[in-house]
Amino acid sequence: MLDLTHNLPPTAASPDAAAEFHDRLAASRAPLPASTKTHEAGVLHPQLRVPLREIALTNGERIAVYDTSGPYTDPAVTTDVRRGLPATRAAWVESRGDTEAYTGRPIQLFDDGLREAAQQQALRAQSAALNRTPRRAKSGANVTQMHYARRGIVTAEMEYVAIRENGRRAWMHEYLADSEREQRLAGQGLGARIPGTITPEFVRDEVARGRAIIPANINHPELEPMAIGRNFLVKVNANIGNSAVSSGIEEEVEKLVWATRWGADTVMDLSTGRNIHTTRDWILRNSPVPIGTVPIYQALEKVGGVAEDLTWELFRDTLIEQAEQGVDYFTIHAGVRLPFVPMTVKRRTGIVSRGGSILAKWCIAHHRENFLYTHFEEICDIMKAYDVSFSLGDGLRPGSLADANDEAQFAELRTLGELTKIAWKHDVQTMIEGPGHVPMHMIQANMTEQLKHCDEAPFYTLGPLTTDIAPGYDHITSGIGAAMIGWFGCAMLCYVTPKEHLGLPDRDDVKQGLMAYKIAAHAADIAKGHPAARARDDALSKARFEFRWEDQFNLGLDPETAREFHDETLPKDSAKVAHFCSMCGPKFCSMKITQDVREYSAQLEDGMREKSAEFRAGGAELYIPIRQD
Amino acid sequence: MLDLTHNLPPTAASPDAAAEFHDRLAASRAPLPASTKTHEAGVLHPQLRVPLREIALTNGERIAVYDTSGPYTDPAVTTDVRRGLPATRAAWVESRGDTEAYTGRPIQLFDDGLREAAQQQALRAQSAALNRTPRRAKSGANVTQMHYARRGIVTAEMEYVAIRENGRRAWMHEYLADSEREQRLAGQGLGARIPGTITPEFVRDEVARGRAIIPANINHPELEPMAIGRNFLVKVNANIGNSAVSSGIEEEVEKLVWATRWGADTVMDLSTGRNIHTTRDWILRNSPVPIGTVPIYQALEKVGGVAEDLTWELFRDTLIEQAEQGVDYFTIHAGVRLPFVPMTVKRRTGIVSRGGSILAKWCIAHHRENFLYTHFEEICDIMKAYDVSFSLGDGLRPGSLADANDEAQFAELRTLGELTKIAWKHDVQTMIEGPGHVPMHMIQANMTEQLKHCDEAPFYTLGPLTTDIAPGYDHITSGIGAAMIGWFGCAMLCYVTPKEHLGLPDRDDVKQGLMAYKIAAHAADIAKGHPAARARDDALSKARFEFRWEDQFNLGLDPETAREFHDETLPKDSAKVAHFCSMCGPKFCSMKITQDVREYSAQLEDGMREKSAEFRAGGAELYIPIRQD
Repeated sequence: MLDLTHNLPPTAASPDAAAEFHDRLAASRAPLPASTKTHEAGVLHPQLRVPLREIALTNGERIAVYDTSGPYTDPAVTTDVRRGLPATRAAWVESRGDTEAYTGRPIQLFDDGLREAAQQQALRAQSAALNRTPRRAKSGANVTQMHYARRGIVTAEMEYVAIRENGRRAWMHEYLADSEREQRLAGQGLGARIPGTITPEFVRDEVARGRAIIPANINHPELEPMAIGRNFLVKVNANIGNSAVSSGIEEEVEKLVWATRWGADTVMDLSTGRNIHTTRDWILRNSPVPIGTVPIYQALEKVGGVAEDLTWELFRDTLIEQAEQGVDYFTIHAGVRLPFVPMTVKRRTGIVSRGGSILAKWCIAHHRENFLYTHFEEICDIMKAYDVSFSLGDGLRPGSLADANDEAQFAELRTLGELTKIAWKHDVQTMIEGPGHVPMHMIQANMTEQLKHCDEAPFYTLGPLTTDIAPGYDHITSGIGAAMIGWFGCAMLCYVTPKEHLGLPDRDDVKQGLMAYKIAAHAADIAKGHPAARARDDALSKARFEFRWEDQFNLGLDPETAREFHDETLPKDSAKVAHFCSMCGPKFCSMKITQDVREYSAQLEDGMREKSAEFRAGGAELYIPIRQD
Repeated sequence: MLDLTHNLPPTAASPDAAAEFHDRLAASRAPLPASTKTHEAGVLHPQLRVPLREIALTNGERIAVYDTSGPYTDPAVTTDVRRGLPATRAAWVESRGDTEAYTGRPIQLFDDGLREAAQQQALRAQSAALNRTPRRAKSGANVTQMHYARRGIVTAEMEYVAIRENGRRAWMHEYLADSEREQRLAGQGLGARIPGTITPEFVRDEVARGRAIIPANINHPELEPMAIGRNFLVKVNANIGNSAVSSGIEEEVEKLVWATRWGADTVMDLSTGRNIHTTRDWILRNSPVPIGTVPIYQALEKVGGVAEDLTWELFRDTLIEQAEQGVDYFTIHAGVRLPFVPMTVKRRTGIVSRGGSILAKWCIAHHRENFLYTHFEEICDIMKAYDVSFSLGDGLRPGSLADANDEAQFAELRTLGELTKIAWKHDVQTMIEGPGHVPMHMIQANMTEQLKHCDEAPFYTLGPLTTDIAPGYDHITSGIGAAMIGWFGCAMLCYVTPKEHLGLPDRDDVKQGLMAYKIAAHAADIAKGHPAARARDDALSKARFEFRWEDQFNLGLDPETAREFHDETLPKDSAKVAHFCSMCGPKFCSMKITQDVREYSAQLEDGMREKSAEFRAGGAELYIPIRQD
């Protein structure tokens, strides 16, 4: 995955900049319009408080939707990035009795890419209150959610996920009760098996089967658990990265808060360069969503950017460093095997994965097999001591349509299938990364091959981009492919921003990327027949038809933009209840005419029935000869 | 279809506004970066000059792409909107000897929605040089392309289309010559039958069969002909409309020029309100692309917006008025039959088509069958006298997912199938309009039903939108559906802008809508296996891999935005040839590392072959046990 850093201006460059930054933080933390944070409690685990965002409509209805934004949008919670979020999950982990606190690996200068201890001390002084004592599995124990699931234990995390996936069903009845409609719109699961209600037991079974993961490092107690799997809602990942020169904890955390506000279900921290260890501490201690990383990036920093100098020992040390911090999933490019590297030579665009190219270079330079592959079981041992999930990286994914579904890509995918089974032998949770650039007609083959070789382990794809010809619009070229592969069974979609291939996404690019991907994920949920997905569409359409403009804005993915677009033409408040809009004006409004038609139709119902019968009797398929009016 | 007007500021509001407007016009007419207009000549019709845009790459290659922008981007042509474009096609039409010039219907005040003759005179004085004497078929003649095609005549329009669809194949050889790649990427036509080379005879056959149309009114001699059909490139329509108060010919024509610059293959003029007759004159005389209209909109204006007051006589007069002006296709909502209207009463969002709701209201008010249906053959008689094509309107299309593929929608579609056969009996060219709002898994059924009932007449769809929950982003919700249905066989995609459902699109919205739809159309062309579609992707990917930044920008759909995004991070000219970009920086660049890998690989090729053989001998599927490095 690329380093998708979005820059924020330095906090204290000027009083104006500081004020502007303060306003920006406040805007990221304000509840969305007409929205209130509510919670559902658990049954097996009554202490659970599973968040929902409730949208109050002008007609009195209250629509509850999935909420990734954590405590930031809850005015009842005071957040302080220098102290971190409440460590709610710590009690769950400790109560299981199979972990121990211990003195972790001491921080080193090169963890932050620094040469002077004073620099590191100054950096870490910003966030002294964030230091934590790490935990790990007791000797011989395995603390993965998969391990518990396979032993029949329904953890607090599993029940949390079940409640979260169901949402609040009561309000949906109004929208999903029409049986003709539900039959007509019934999804096509294409092998998905989504039950009408998600039970904690169902979650346990899916995790035990390996068909879903709950990325949840025991050292990330701030986490609000979520699931990634084809029988759950399709999830979206956003990538963030630190700025070249770190500008302070507030700004680094702000990137995360901004992404979760717009629906990021997980966030990958793809930072490179200086301060990455400490920045990661800041992010993890303040993140309500799972954090993923690509540890080879940091390992490469530690050897000065020279791929050939990487060693297993250094990499292993980096895994432990990040596992102790609480990273929830690691991208591990163990499928970039030495014999596959020459398969890329005739490609149009070679190897475009950064991790893939680093490991390919290492393999060729040493003429040896990829050390991530040869040490894979040792990596599993680390993963299960902290419950870090695998995201098996697709280092040989295609970087152009020309290279889609080629020998190198599928050779690696089959290897990821082998590795999945090894990870599962260790009860380590595993998902599989996928392409990339793929024409529409070749997307389904990607999903089919993945399901077959990886035995339904969750698929996590970047796009895919369905054409190469639109730099500047790759959130759209890839949103098309993402929606399709989500329908076909992909569990999580890694977003692409408009800046893909061109530069570093800024704040608005991150939002644009998330909007395109929330659309793709939701369209996929509807197509695969998630039983609760379409209710929100129906609620919004009903508001639209009834000219409840405020509700139409507030039910949308981006209420602010919807309102702003409307107000460009009709800014007055009275227009918000007007029974027309700027597209057609009062006389032409088709929705208004339809309401007139309904009234006519009700009056004439008997007559119409007769007319219909006459029509049918006359042979409904036949053209009626012209008659003079 | 909605009235998607984009406003332009009044020309002469202030000197600054006038200067700004002048700059805008100049920007719309400048050639795209590194681009030159070139032409191909005909063989059967040597006088043809079929336009292509040739992009000069920094490595000396010259890539030619389809060009919809007309003479505006050709510095060799001086365009003057008050005189109109050259009437090149007039000679083709006259040479066929089956048409006659005649004194047309005199313009009336209510054609422009005006009450004072002086107003109309002042309005038309702006464009006195645009007045034309209309032509029509001689008594008993039929001048449609379909009629010629069925008599075995390959018209100039047909050869023009064949040359245009092929593009210039010579440069593509570099990109499409690899047989492994072409086999791997072979499209899935799903019933499309696209030959390797489009011959004029193939075009004739497709038009004769009704599977393609060439919208080309004999009174639109400024037209550069194009084809709409499943065995041709997928086309894109953009809607424009006049401003509430017309602000002059330059500004009205500018909307058209802007849309064709960004790839609009046809433009629908959905103007309502005042000045629409004269504005349409301005647009037609200056349009290189086919112009479509919805005549019922103007007819409704003429009766003061009261649907019940519409009459066949008034409508017929409006058709002749517009046919004489040169409109190339008419949306005719003849499928909104009286018995279908009650089927919409239980819908979530009733009737959302403006034309559909007008006719539904008329039917119910009079308790009579739709007069467009009862007079359909008389409409055919008008269409064939000018070669206006039908776009049979989907007045009952769904306006929400909840209403997708319902009884009302499919009852109308079957009626459009009946009407297609009647139109074909008269040799009138016909396409069929389609939805709307449809979940992904229900899109294919729309295409299948349309192909079945309308016997492969070209399908022309609005989106479809795959979710209702993203007002402000409906170019994306619908771009997903548009790409899919384009692959499945849809011939033309009507764009949706980000302002859909919310307000009037401005200049940037029009561009955003077109970008999303050009992406969808191109992704569909690749998926259905158009033999020349993928070459541009390959050329761009090759430029990307070789760090030819300028070429990457210039080969993209929007060179200006791509360059601007790149320059936000790396503005210097030296970065345009740098072998890295801002995403990873110099050390991390995966593409650069890949090039290193290629060099290593070449050196070690023999050794690698041995290694590969050893791997395969060892059982390629097996996990190799961990060994200590």
